Formats: sequence, C-alpha cells, structure tokens
Amino acid sequence: MSSGVTFVPGFRASGVSCGLKKNGNPDFALVVSDVPAACAGVYTRNVVKGHSLQLCAKHSALGTAQAVAINSGCANACLGQRGADDALKMAQMVAQKVGCPVSQVLTGSTGVIGEPLDMDKIADGVQKAYAALSTQGGEAAAHAIMTTDTLCKQVSAQCTLGGKTVHMGAMAKGSGMIHPNMATMISVITTDANISAETLKVLIKDVADSSYNHICVDGDTSVCDTVVILANALADNEELLPGQEDYQAFVQMLKEQCLKLARMLAGDGEGATKLMEIHVNGAASKQDAKLIAQAISKSPLVKTDLFGEDANWGRILTAAGYSGGCFDPEKVDLYINSIQVCGQGCALAYDEAAVKQTLKKNAVTYRLELNQGTASDFMLGCDLTLDYVKINSDYRT
Amino acid sequence: MSSGVTFVPGFRASGVSCGLKKNGNPDFALVVSDVPAACAGVYTRNVVKGHSLQLCAKHSALGTAQAVAINSGCANACLGQRGADDALKMAQMVAQKVGCPVSQVLTGSTGVIGEPLDMDKIADGVQKAYAALSTQGGEAAAHAIMTTDTLCKQVSAQCTLGGKTVHMGAMAKGSGMIHPNMATMISVITTDANISAETLKVLIKDVADSSYNHICVDGDTSVCDTVVILANALADNEELLPGQEDYQAFVQMLKEQCLKLARMLAGDGEGATKLMEIHVNGAASKQDAKLIAQAISKSPLVKTDLFGEDANWGRILTAAGYSGGCFDPEKVDLYINSIQVCGQGCALAYDEAAVKQTLKKNAVTYRLELNQGTASDFMLGCDLTLDYVKINSDYRT
Repeated sequence: MSSGVTFVPGFRASGVSCGLKKNGNPDFALVVSDVPAACAGVYTRNVVKGHSLQLCAKHSALGTAQAVAINSGCANACLGQRGADDALKMAQMVAQKVGCPVSQVLTGSTGVIGEPLDMDKIADGVQKAYAALSTQGGEAAAHAIMTTDTLCKQVSAQCTLGGKTVHMGAMAKGSGMIHPNMATMISVITTDANISAETLKVLIKDVADSSYNHICVDGDTSVCDTVVILANALADNEELLPGQEDYQAFVQMLKEQCLKLARMLAGDGEGATKLMEIHVNGAASKQDAKLIAQAISKSPLVKTDLFGEDANWGRILTAAGYSGGCFDPEKVDLYINSIQVCGQGCALAYDEAAVKQTLKKNAVTYRLELNQGTASDFMLGCDLTLDYVKINSDYRT
Repeated sequence: MSSGVTFVPGFRASGVSCGLKKNGNPDFALVVSDVPAACAGVYTRNVVKGHSLQLCAKHSALGTAQAVAINSGCANACLGQRGADDALKMAQMVAQKVGCPVSQVLTGSTGVIGEPLDMDKIADGVQKAYAALSTQGGEAAAHAIMTTDTLCKQVSAQCTLGGKTVHMGAMAKGSGMIHPNMATMISVITTDANISAETLKVLIKDVADSSYNHICVDGDTSVCDTVVILANALADNEELLPGQEDYQAFVQMLKEQCLKLARMLAGDGEGATKLMEIHVNGAASKQDAKLIAQAISKSPLVKTDLFGEDANWGRILTAAGYSGGCFDPEKVDLYINSIQVCGQGCALAYDEAAVKQTLKKNAVTYRLELNQGTASDFMLGCDLTLDYVKINSDYRT
C-alpha cells in the first residue's frame, strides 16, 4: 500500500540526494500527476518571499499543474534576479523531463537564505528524481523535503462520493520558523477528486486557516511557506461544488488530514519534547480568543516552563494579559489537562503532585475559560528546549 | 561615595533578607526620603496586574511619596482580595515605621505569580530594612530587588541647574519577562530636583518610552512592571518646568541614565551572553521602523543565531518581512556591526571570517537601512541561550 502523496491513483513521486545537503541526506523531491491536474496554493504573507515560491505562486495561479519539484538544503531566497532565474531553470528542467509546459511545474525550496542554488546539483536532482518516480514514492518524497524535521510527515484518507472512491494524500515538512500569518511550511496535497481550480483556490485558504495556521513553533514566519493541492479528477466523481453534501464530506476529509499534519508539525517542532495545545473558550469574540491563544503559544516563558514540566501557570495568565485580547482577569479559569489550577483569576489549592504527573505526558493542553462569551480558538505549539537552542545556534555549521 | 538611589542627598535605603527567597539572598528593599517627595510612576499595560503594583499606582497618582518598599521572591499577583489586603498591610507597616501616611508608601513585588506573600516574613523585612536604612544603602537595595539578574544595576549622575547641583540616582531589576508595551521591569529613580508631580507624570512616561520600552529579552510582559521617580526638592533649584533650558538639561540627564540602565537590563537578559542592538533606519514611518526592530529583537531564530555567533542573516530579513512594517525587500541593506552582508535585498560576497570575528563581541549591532524614508527606531535585546532555557525550565524548583 502506497502512502502520502502516492496513496492517490495517478500520482508518482520520488525523493533523491543531489548533494545540496552536506550530510548526504535526500534533498530533492518530485511529485508528478499522470495527467494535468487542477491546482491551487496558499503562500507566505512575509514581505520577503523566496524565489522558488514566487514562481510557484505565479504558476499555481494559472490553475493547472502536472509536477511539483522541491529541494531542501537551500531556500533560494534574497538572491535577486539570479534566484528568479534559477527557480525558472529548475522548472524548465522538470518540464522537459515530464513533457509538460513549464507553467505546469510548481517549485519549492527550503533551507538557508542568501546562498544561491547549485544548479549543477539541481540538474542532477531532476535527472535522478525523474528516473526514480514511482507509485510507491510518496514516503521518499516526504523524506527529501525534510530540513530539521525528525519525523517524516504524511497522511492519507479516502471516502466514497456519489459511488466513487475519492483518495487524498499529503506530505508536509517544517519544524522551525512556523507560525500563522502564512500557509506555514511546505505541504503538498494530492487527490483524484474532480474539483475545479476555482473551487480549490477558495478551499485551500480555508483549510490552511483551520489547520496549519494554528501552529506556532517559534513565532517566526518563513519566507518559503507553501501549501499546494493538485486534483487530477481520475476518481471520475461528479464535479465537487460548494453547497453539495459530497463537497462537505470532501472538505471535512481534507481538513481532518491537514489538522493531523498540523499536530505532527507542532509536536515535531525543533527540539520539542511535547505537543502543547492551547484552547481558549468563552471569549467575547473570536479575535480575542485568537490573540490570547497565540500569545500563550509564542511565550518563551510558557514554553520553557512546559519543557521543565513545571506548573508555573502565572506565565500563562501573564501571556493572556499582554496578548491584546480582551478579558476580565478576575473571571478566568485555567486548566492544565483536566486539572484546574486557577479559578476566577486566583490561585487554587490544587494537587501539585497530580499536576507534575500530568505535565509528564507527550501532549499537554492548557485550557482557559474566560467566562465572557461563547467564542473560542486554539493553537498547536510545543515546548522550548535546550535542543531548540542547540539546533538553531549552529544550523549552518 | 554613595551609589544608586542614595547618591542623592536626602535619601536613605537598605536591602535585607527576610526569607522570601529560598536561597537566603536579600529580598526586601526600602528607599526613604527624609521629606515627602513629589512622585510619579508608569506601570505595566498587562491586563493582569500584580496587587502591590495596583496599590503603588493608586498611591503614586496622588503625587507625594516618602517611601518605596519592594520585595523580591513573590509577585503578589493573581491572589484576589488577599493579595490586595497584603499589599496594603505591607504599606501600612512601612508607613508606621517611617511616620508618614500610608498613601505615601509605594509598593512593589516581583517573583512567582499565584503564591501568597508570607506576611510574617514581610513584617520581619520591614523591621530589618527600616533599622538598616543608610545614606550608603543604595547598593544593598539594588541587590535586594534582584530576581534572576546576575548583576546589580544602578546609575547616578549630577548636573548644575541655575547654580545648584542636582543629583539623580536609580536602580533597576529585571532580566526575563521584559518587553515594551509596559514600563518594563522594576526601577526606582531618586532626585533632589525641585520638580512637581504633575511635570514628573508626563516626563516619566516619555523617559520610559525612550529607554526601558526599547528592551526586549523574551517578548513577555510582566504583570509587575513598574518605574517610579521621587523628587525631594532638596537641591533647592528653581522649579523645573517644560520649556526651560534647565528642564531640558534635566530631562537629558534622566534619559541618559535610564538608557544606561536599559542597556544593562538587556545585556543581563536571562542567560544572555551578548547585548544585541537593532537599529532600523531609512523607514517610511517611525511605526514601520519600530515594528521591524521589535520583530527582529523578539525572533528566537535571530537570537539563537547570535548565541551561535553565526551570520545566518536571512533570519533578520525574515523577521523584518513578517513584522508588519512596510518596506521594499529589494532596497534593504543590512550590516552586522560595520560589515555589510546584504545589499538591496541580495546576499553580498562578504568576508565570512571577519563577520565571525565581529560576532564574538559582547555587543553586536544589526543595522538595517531600508532606503525608504527618514524615520528610524532601535531595540535593545540579547541572545537566546541554553542558559535561558535552563533558568526558565526550573525557575520555581
């Protein structure tokens, strides 16, 4: 059984080493659809944008794609015309191999900023990756897009729509520089559903908002964040359109898979030992809940405290307090997993040993009940650890 | 020669141990003016506010103070009515000793949130601190307000205004949970200038904005941040009023001293090995420059990179790019100390060894020239280190 992007009929993929990564790990991934596919993407909102991403955004806006080529080990960013030229060359090489127009090739690059792509290595990567394309290649592709990820991240699912089986597969990478206000990291989603590029365009933004945009690893937003979806229509279902029951089922499947990937991404944050979920309920507005959840998820003090498996919950209230979200501090209840530690803004005499115990889990949920209204939001984050600092203080060396 | 707050004639101070800190270090500071002094304060903008701070804000708003009492080891925050009662009791004990109205006692508490003040220990602290008051006690007081600070922080200066010598002294504490959008940390400023509480009220906000509010250690904003100034008028100068030349000279002295303390605070950020200065010039607006400088100063990726003495400057551009400040990425020049690493948004072929060398310094300046306009701003920060994580993952234990 094939996994990830090649779980879907009509897609082949591969992941190879072309020498961009000094350690020799796979660093070039290729995903190809047997037929031209409808496509859409969401991209970083950073003012600074990688060159490969800029080309990808331009091509995906046309609505049809047949290949996605992604290298790791180099971001191809902040290089002026040279960076733009290199991204285009990469797309041209892939187009020539696949036999499709260059505008149907989507490109991605992830790694260090400011260093130019070694185009000889890229040429080698395209050559090898094309030769290695396989209906079993999803996992290899997912490996080749990893940077500081410790786990390969892919999901797949299927459902029956109008009597036809519709498949979906996806891979994602990214563990540092992950924060909302962007699509987040690099993710490629494949499906054999019959759905138009116009419909996908609206849908993918909605899906990213409800999954990837709830992740915060370090509050930084990369210049290369990309989510693209390709739909090759080989399932032969009736075209999915908003309003249909089938469309809803498809959307739900897509959101669930992306949320699964989002949890994997947060839990595999650089150096992370724990997934941290923050749920803010009872807010007067969605915006209040969002600001509060985001501030807590970004707070280095909250994150280091979780690493220490310590219940210094004042830091959580402190972060809520400076978030810009409105609430009455004297109405807040705070729970660590199922244990309430603070009631109406005041310390409770909770069982310290029980809290210590619950903080040892791999996933910890902080839940704030603001008791102001009915709006809620959540964030997925992780702890801030010694390894995070180690990884990021000698990333280039 | 007496230093810090007791550099100023008419002020006595002390710092003693009363057992609030488990390690027995000094944890109670008292500063007393021989005569009632004009006073003003700026306080945290956090929605959650410590109880001692709330009382301090209430009392300082009245414009006259004779004593400042600060304990470390316990924040007296998130404790409901009990916290408010305890802050008032602390002020009452001090008032009784000093012989002034309770409304002339300013209070501060810093440390862990959610644990109640041990009032027996506070009573002991007041007793001992009053007995120890001395015109040489500035340094002892500065020691007693420290939490995770590694250095005692105080400054002093004097100038001649209208033929009279005017003195100024100050102490500050705070190394984690420091970020603008607040007064920042705890700082007590004394002066013998003749200046009214009304004038001080406007001035202290301006001074905090131009010094303490440029510090970012971890982006968190404490619930206990406080800056208070006491002016006892013993210099016998003509009353300082905005518009006068003497007033300008006084303001300049005050700002310089507070900026000195701000640099000490940033350089002594929790676990910090380096002071990081960020200067953003040539912005279209002050707000753009501010957003960009703040985003860089907060970025864990920039901060860990500095710790590693690495020139992964793409992280600096990335942070600028998601800051919300407007700029054209293709016009940006970036300097690390005096070495330009990026020109018009593109990587330059700089001398890697020279950059490595300059990054070894105790203070590193990142300077962005946006080439968009004439506005500028700056931030004072520090690197994010293994020690930061160690300190904050077992702060309570």
